Amino acid sequence: MSDHLVVDCLEYSAPNRDRFLEWQRGRVGCVHVTLSVWENTRETLSVIGQWNDLFAEHADLIELARTVDDIRRISGSGRTAVVFGFQNTAALEDDIRLVQVFHDLGVRIMQLTYNTQNSIAAGCWENEDSGLSTHVGRGFVREMNQTGVLIDLSHCSEKTCLDTIEYSERPVAVTHANPLEFVGSDVELNRRPKSTTVLKELASAGGVVGLSPYVRMLKGGKHATLQSFVDMTLWTIDQIGIDHVAFGTDFYTGYDVSMVKWWRAGRWGRESPVPIDEHAPVVEWPVWFESPEAFPGVIDALAGSGVDDESLGKLLGGNWLRLFDQTFAPRAGA
Amino acid sequence: MSDHLVVDCLEYSAPNRDRFLEWQRGRVGCVHVTLSVWENTRETLSVIGQWNDLFAEHADLIELARTVDDIRRISGSGRTAVVFGFQNTAALEDDIRLVQVFHDLGVRIMQLTYNTQNSIAAGCWENEDSGLSTHVGRGFVREMNQTGVLIDLSHCSEKTCLDTIEYSERPVAVTHANPLEFVGSDVELNRRPKSTTVLKELASAGGVVGLSPYVRMLKGGKHATLQSFVDMTLWTIDQIGIDHVAFGTDFYTGYDVSMVKWWRAGRWGRESPVPIDEHAPVVEWPVWFESPEAFPGVIDALAGSGVDDESLGKLLGGNWLRLFDQTFAPRAGA
Repeated sequence: MSDHLVVDCLEYSAPNRDRFLEWQRGRVGCVHVTLSVWENTRETLSVIGQWNDLFAEHADLIELARTVDDIRRISGSGRTAVVFGFQNTAALEDDIRLVQVFHDLGVRIMQLTYNTQNSIAAGCWENEDSGLSTHVGRGFVREMNQTGVLIDLSHCSEKTCLDTIEYSERPVAVTHANPLEFVGSDVELNRRPKSTTVLKELASAGGVVGLSPYVRMLKGGKHATLQSFVDMTLWTIDQIGIDHVAFGTDFYTGYDVSMVKWWRAGRWGRESPVPIDEHAPVVEWPVWFESPEAFPGVIDALAGSGVDDESLGKLLGGNWLRLFDQTFAPRAGA
Repeated sequence: MSDHLVVDCLEYSAPNRDRFLEWQRGRVGCVHVTLSVWENTRETLSVIGQWNDLFAEHADLIELARTVDDIRRISGSGRTAVVFGFQNTAALEDDIRLVQVFHDLGVRIMQLTYNTQNSIAAGCWENEDSGLSTHVGRGFVREMNQTGVLIDLSHCSEKTCLDTIEYSERPVAVTHANPLEFVGSDVELNRRPKSTTVLKELASAGGVVGLSPYVRMLKGGKHATLQSFVDMTLWTIDQIGIDHVAFGTDFYTGYDVSMVKWWRAGRWGRESPVPIDEHAPVVEWPVWFESPEAFPGVIDALAGSGVDDESLGKLLGGNWLRLFDQTFAPRAGA
């Protein structure tokens, strides 16, 4: 049994005690949760308020982490450290000074955009990919670098990834995406997986990618096996090195179709640009990862495929903790 | 003396009685004013509230116009019809249903973006020009077409202009910009003038361009003569036809440097990407157009250069009124 600290660098379930108990049973020491996709400033403050209530009510299971020391302390006590993040910059409402305001409230990870283009960057759903925008985009990357916010590129476009990796003065993350070359371009929502070029540049700049058992990004889709997930992990390590691969499951549960519509089209669209099955709107998870409780099984499969203990430590949490340590604090003099 | 209805299709002065008196002395029958560049939904509602007060206090000089009939009635009474517009979509906060909400409040013209990229479109300051965005941009254009909002492309990028002219099912406007080929690319802020390609496509689709005496978009800058402005008008008519050329002065006064900084960088930038002269922040106007009071002199110069009376009627207001008539009402069945 591994005693490595496990970090799941993206989950987005409706938060409640059942989820926190799953984390405990799965021995997940740290989870990066999403506060906002399209929620604006005011709405996001309410989401933080709801989490504050959860921290008070379930202090036996969870606590907010602002630093890597917090993560080690909280997970060391047998509980789960929660890291706040955004999957979009909607909560900033184009106000550069809100980067620090939300950092002060504990937000440590911000994705530049969620699927579509915004003032800062192009998302993976755009047919015309302008990358990081000339003035607003570069300004926000500088601000996040300065303030101590880890930039997430998971739902961003190819050019946004490459531009940001190059422009950012601190390493960046793809918290939850799989390698396009391995999974193939025939999977549903195939714009989400990352090219080998992006993954190699990400790694060269010190970044980390979090691999996910989300069936729409797996080779084989819902029929993908645990061995195929292990193979994808080994393939990615082979491409970009053991120091740059980790996990971000993208796990979510507890929502009905209205939340899926919100994710797909926010308030900006009258319809989702991608089909939503009204009868089965929430994605199925593979039998070998029905919840984060399944982490020990994934760890056993990795070990069984020859991943040594030091490498396991990096994959499960060490790489994320190194990256968090390089990015979560304000720059000296800031 | 011309008795044609004069429409100035973009002014952005701090509104007060002095401005309304200038309109009366210049016999300007209709002015399109700006409610928002970076102002969000809530802030824009307050701007509408301030205009409502002005309409009540200065009913002898101004009234809000929602239709072309309103414009004719108000200007026919010797007063000035005010048309509400946005120079950005910030006030919509990415909520597609706010297009109709603001239409219900009288807003009839919306510019897709102001200089920089947003979720809908690329602006003229971007180095990478993605045009109208794939999902959000097209969705908002459809919504504006349906609701009865005239789309303005003045500060948009080349590709945004071409994409929107093609995608929109109603004709669109460039309310305030000059022709790049005539003014040359050496003028300050040279990304604002429009290419001949854009102007020709605009006209082919039934749109109208409003020419401006803003010195940063004039050939010769602050030394440009009235004759040069007349020559630019004749040149543009020659390129795209008398039915597609009009005026949008971009006139503004009554602000200090803080407003200029707001226009240039909103809340998204710590600094303006273009230099601002702290000692002379507000642009100078040419001696022949120090305010809208100067319209009669411009009209005399046009007539003196051989523009016939029918053509003058189109240039001064007829073209705008035709375009407004084609775009301000909700689509049947909407």
